[in-house]
Amino acid sequence: MGEPAKSIARERDFQSAVLTLRELTAADMEAVNGTIVNHLQSSVKMIPEVAGHLINAGGKRLRPVVTLAAARAFGYDGPHHISLAAAVELIHGATLLHDDVVDASRLRRGLETANVVWGNKESVLVGDFLFSRSFELMVKTGSLKVLQILSRASCVIAEGEVLQLATQQNTKSTFDMYLDVVEAKTAELFAAAAQAGAVVAGAGDVQEDAFRQYGLNLGIAYQLVDDALDYSGNEKALGKSVGDDFREGKITLPVVYAIESARNNEEAAFWERTIGETAQSETDLSHAMQLMHRDNTLGRTLDCARSYADKALNCLNKLPDNEMTAALAELADLSISRAS
Amino acid sequence: MGEPAKSIARERDFQSAVLTLRELTAADMEAVNGTIVNHLQSSVKMIPEVAGHLINAGGKRLRPVVTLAAARAFGYDGPHHISLAAAVELIHGATLLHDDVVDASRLRRGLETANVVWGNKESVLVGDFLFSRSFELMVKTGSLKVLQILSRASCVIAEGEVLQLATQQNTKSTFDMYLDVVEAKTAELFAAAAQAGAVVAGAGDVQEDAFRQYGLNLGIAYQLVDDALDYSGNEKALGKSVGDDFREGKITLPVVYAIESARNNEEAAFWERTIGETAQSETDLSHAMQLMHRDNTLGRTLDCARSYADKALNCLNKLPDNEMTAALAELADLSISRAS
Repeated sequence: MGEPAKSIARERDFQSAVLTLRELTAADMEAVNGTIVNHLQSSVKMIPEVAGHLINAGGKRLRPVVTLAAARAFGYDGPHHISLAAAVELIHGATLLHDDVVDASRLRRGLETANVVWGNKESVLVGDFLFSRSFELMVKTGSLKVLQILSRASCVIAEGEVLQLATQQNTKSTFDMYLDVVEAKTAELFAAAAQAGAVVAGAGDVQEDAFRQYGLNLGIAYQLVDDALDYSGNEKALGKSVGDDFREGKITLPVVYAIESARNNEEAAFWERTIGETAQSETDLSHAMQLMHRDNTLGRTLDCARSYADKALNCLNKLPDNEMTAALAELADLSISRAS
Repeated sequence: MGEPAKSIARERDFQSAVLTLRELTAADMEAVNGTIVNHLQSSVKMIPEVAGHLINAGGKRLRPVVTLAAARAFGYDGPHHISLAAAVELIHGATLLHDDVVDASRLRRGLETANVVWGNKESVLVGDFLFSRSFELMVKTGSLKVLQILSRASCVIAEGEVLQLATQQNTKSTFDMYLDVVEAKTAELFAAAAQAGAVVAGAGDVQEDAFRQYGLNLGIAYQLVDDALDYSGNEKALGKSVGDDFREGKITLPVVYAIESARNNEEAAFWERTIGETAQSETDLSHAMQLMHRDNTLGRTLDCARSYADKALNCLNKLPDNEMTAALAELADLSISRAS
C-alpha cells in the first residue's frame, strides 16, 4: 500500500486518528456497545453495576475498533466481527479489574476504581464474569480459530502480569526483560484483536499474520507511550495520577534507561531505594523526574515507541490499501503523539 | 436402567465410590493428569509453582472423572474427553485460587493456600492463567458446543460467587436464596462437566440433558454435604479447619435452618451478631454447634442433600445401563455419606 506515513498531515494527533477510525466503524461500534451492555446483564445486580462502572466510564475502545477495522479491511459484511470486538473489549475489561486489584490502583478513566468503590473481592469475581462472558461471545462467531487465538492471548496476558509481578522492583531489569512484559501484558491483546478480525473475514494466513504483527507492534508502541505519560502526562487528560508507576516501584522503560544512566553510587542508591524498596519520601518523584529529564529517558522511550510504530506501519504494506488500512496506518503513526 | 440404588451395598462409602470410578477411568485419568501438568508449564516459572501447589495437593478430581465416565458411558473412544476433563479441572482450580483470595482462606487440601504462601496478587493472576488454559484445552476438542456449555458455566459460577458475596452475612437468607447460590457456584460445574462429557461422545440432546441434570443434582447434594461437614467434619480428613464458614459469616443451609429455628430473641440476636456482624468470641462456634445439634440442622441438611442425590439417581434412568453409569449411580447414592 505504498508509503502511508508520508501522506499523513502532521497536525493531526492520536485522538483524531482514533476518531477517524471510530467514524469509519460507527455503526459497528454502536452494535458492539449494545452487545457489551446486553452481556453485562445478570440476575445478580451487582455485576452490571461493577462492570458498567468500568466499561461506561469510556476508554478509547481501541482494541475492538482495531478488530472491526481489520475485518472491514477485507470487505467483511457478516455479523461475527461485532461479537468478536465485544469479546475483545470484555477481556480487556476483565484484565483492568484484576490489574487494579493487583496494583491497588485508586483511579482509572477519571473515576475511582471498582476495587475502591466496591472492594477487591467484587472486582476479582466480576472480572471472572467478564472473562467468561467474553468466551460466550466468541463462541457466537462460530470460529474455533478465533477461540484459539484469544484463549492463547489470555494465557499470554496472565503470564505477562505474573512476569511483571516477578520483575517489579527488580532494578537489574534490562530492556529485553521489560519488553517481554510489555509484549505479553499489553501487545498480545492488540495482536489477537487485529488477527482475529482478519480471521472472521477469512483473510488467509499471510494477511492474518500481517495484522497480528501490526497489532503487536502497535501495542508495544502504545504501552511505551503509556509508560512515558506516567511521568509526564496531564492528570486530567490521563484520568489517573502521574507517578503511579513510580510509587508502585514498577519497572518501565523510562526507569530502565534512568537506572542505566546513573552517574554515581548515590544515584544508583536512589533508584534502589525508591524502586527496589519502594521506600519513598515526598520529594522522590520530583527528583526521579529531574534525573529522567537530564538523561532524556522519556525522549528515548518515545524514540523506542516510534521504532515499533514504524514496524506496525510496515506490516500494513502486505494488506489491502483502503480507508480502513489508511486509518490504521494513521493510528500507528500518531500513537506516539498522544496526551492520554 | 432399572433401580440402581437398590443394588448398592451400603457398607461402601463415598470414597470407595470415587475409587471405583477412578479405577474404571484409570488410563484416562492418567492422560488427564499428564495433560494438566503439560498445561501448567510456562516460561514464567512462578506459574507452575503456584498452580502445581494447588493441583498436585490432590483433591478428588471428581469433576473430570464425571466427564470421563459420561463420555465412556456412550462407548466414546476418541481423544477429546481427555482435553475436556483436564479443562474442567483447570476451571475448578482457577475458581479455588480466586475463592481462597475472596474468602481469605488459609488452608486447603491440608496445605496452606496459595494466597498465604505466595500472596493474593499471585493467586488472582495464576487463576486467570488456569482459566485461560482451560479454554485453550477446550478448543482442542474441536467442539463449539463444549465451549458454549463451559463458557456459560463459567459465567454462572462467577455469578454464584458474586451472589454469595451479596447474601453472605444476610441472616434473612431463605432456603431458596441459598439454593440459588449452590446451584450457581458449585452445581453448575458438575452439570457442565457431565453434559460436556456426553457431548464429546455425540450422545444426543435427551441424554446430554439427562447427564446435565445428573451433574446438577449431584453437585447440589455435594455442596450441602460440604456445608454440613464444615460444622461436623474431621479436620484431618477435610484438610481444612472446621468452622471456617461460621467465622466468615457464610450463610449455608445448616445456618439457614438454625436461624429459622431460633426459639427466642436471644438466639436470634446470637445469629445476627455472629453471622450478620461476624462479631464473634471464642465460645461462639461451640454454642452455634450446640444449637445446630439441638435443632438437628445438620441432619436436616443431609436429608435435603439426600433428596438431591435421589434426583441425580433418577436422571440415570434415561441413560445406558453399564459399568460407568452404575458407578455414577453409586457416586450419587453415597454422596451424602462422606467424611471429606
